[in-house]
Amino acid sequence: MIERIAILGTGLLGASAGLALRAAGFGGQIVGWNRSPEQGQLALEMGAIDAVADDPIEAARQSQVVLLAMPIYATLDFMEKLAGVLGPEQLVTDVGSTKKTICEAAARLYNMPERAAFLPGHPMAGKERGGASLADADLFRGAVWLFTDDPAARRSPQGEALVKGWREWVAAMGSRTLDLDPARHDELVAWVSHLPQFTATALSALLEEEVGDAPELKDVGGRALREMTRLGASPFSMWRDIAFTNTEAVERALLALEQRLAYLRENLRTPALREEFEQANRFRRDDRSS
Amino acid sequence: MIERIAILGTGLLGASAGLALRAAGFGGQIVGWNRSPEQGQLALEMGAIDAVADDPIEAARQSQVVLLAMPIYATLDFMEKLAGVLGPEQLVTDVGSTKKTICEAAARLYNMPERAAFLPGHPMAGKERGGASLADADLFRGAVWLFTDDPAARRSPQGEALVKGWREWVAAMGSRTLDLDPARHDELVAWVSHLPQFTATALSALLEEEVGDAPELKDVGGRALREMTRLGASPFSMWRDIAFTNTEAVERALLALEQRLAYLRENLRTPALREEFEQANRFRRDDRSS
Repeated sequence: MIERIAILGTGLLGASAGLALRAAGFGGQIVGWNRSPEQGQLALEMGAIDAVADDPIEAARQSQVVLLAMPIYATLDFMEKLAGVLGPEQLVTDVGSTKKTICEAAARLYNMPERAAFLPGHPMAGKERGGASLADADLFRGAVWLFTDDPAARRSPQGEALVKGWREWVAAMGSRTLDLDPARHDELVAWVSHLPQFTATALSALLEEEVGDAPELKDVGGRALREMTRLGASPFSMWRDIAFTNTEAVERALLALEQRLAYLRENLRTPALREEFEQANRFRRDDRSS
Repeated sequence: MIERIAILGTGLLGASAGLALRAAGFGGQIVGWNRSPEQGQLALEMGAIDAVADDPIEAARQSQVVLLAMPIYATLDFMEKLAGVLGPEQLVTDVGSTKKTICEAAARLYNMPERAAFLPGHPMAGKERGGASLADADLFRGAVWLFTDDPAARRSPQGEALVKGWREWVAAMGSRTLDLDPARHDELVAWVSHLPQFTATALSALLEEEVGDAPELKDVGGRALREMTRLGASPFSMWRDIAFTNTEAVERALLALEQRLAYLRENLRTPALREEFEQANRFRRDDRSS
């Protein structure tokens, strides 16, 4: 039923979505746009999109589904720009890493008579570096694609059909969907996604100061060090928006980790160290992957 | 020239060394011993050793090179037991993760007339779980094998020849060797190895408390979470000895990370966040692996 999709933002996630839709058998048209024209061109050359749009608003107007695949504040800008232009036979969805701010904007701008439907989404997939050149048709395979759905989006039969249709394509791209309340979403990802990222950033920044002038010493750390600092390469441009829109939950998580590290430091020679290792072992008990 | 090797401790590192020696063309005899007989039997069945010894002291006595591949305090115990039994035509070497304590014991017990030579070693390779069943002939390939060599070990011609011979086998197993002073070694590994491990332990223990009762939520974190907590599975039995023998350096590293996380937490909405990400990016600038 969905035959025309506009992907606004053809970086890693947007271009990967185009490739994954094609791989899953999507036979309609995919038009793309990116703020940097070379990223749009690259997505076109990779076959992630059928055409590069000159005007993102016009491309959205001519599509049934608009996928906003850009950082959070850019997503909020486009939500504003598109709200008055699109109509009730259209669906806008996104991939933003925090959902409370976006859901507030959606409640204000979408999901009401004469307006398009908005389905807030968040695929838990990515790489530590962005850009269309790293796009991958399998990026979403095996990942969880979160939705913080407002029932109001399904208020109209067209809205309901488009929401259902997009969810089916997400499943076809290989993702498992999970529905959460927006506040619960932001709290949860603060623990399982934002805390690991900010920890890797702090650890990498610290190690750059301590051993950064002796590159051969980085090799000494081996796989463990590479893994624990891989996310140190993540771009500020994306994480700034996350830090701004999920500040309190991230603060709580960081403070809790600081306290846990201090506890461990104070117990390096006491039986409490065993308990910490056993507690950590429990977190990994179901995962035998190495 | 080296024709008889005893591997005392045929867990992950010991059994991997046996397999790697064979893969590198070692044609002599390798006898193994493990505190748990089933690990010794497993190493034998894998072809990592030619025979299981009943008595580790007797096995060491009949070998030219004795590889101690066990946690640090067990290594120290064997250093004591073997010192009076072995002679100057023999070399003892180890794989312990901290070197100051071991080098102090070596200076007291080895590298003197009528005594065996001792070469303190530390291959920067491992897995988050131990045991012979995970042994791998390629475990040391591409890794750095650190030595904190005391020139006194090469005091005698036999000692010098055995040290040279063992270093050649380490290179043949695919490792790059690097020589460090023992104090510098322990300080360096506190940053590039022990800090990443204790960080993963604290993060995993914290997340077990926060989301451990909802296993489906772990999936939400995806690859980033799996990587940042993989080392959470590491066994206390190994890390206890490291915490005990490198306490001060690990305390300094943990305190520095706590402060760095606090700084990041206090700057989630200031321009300093950009500087932290850029500093972290610099640490990863030479590593394009993902």
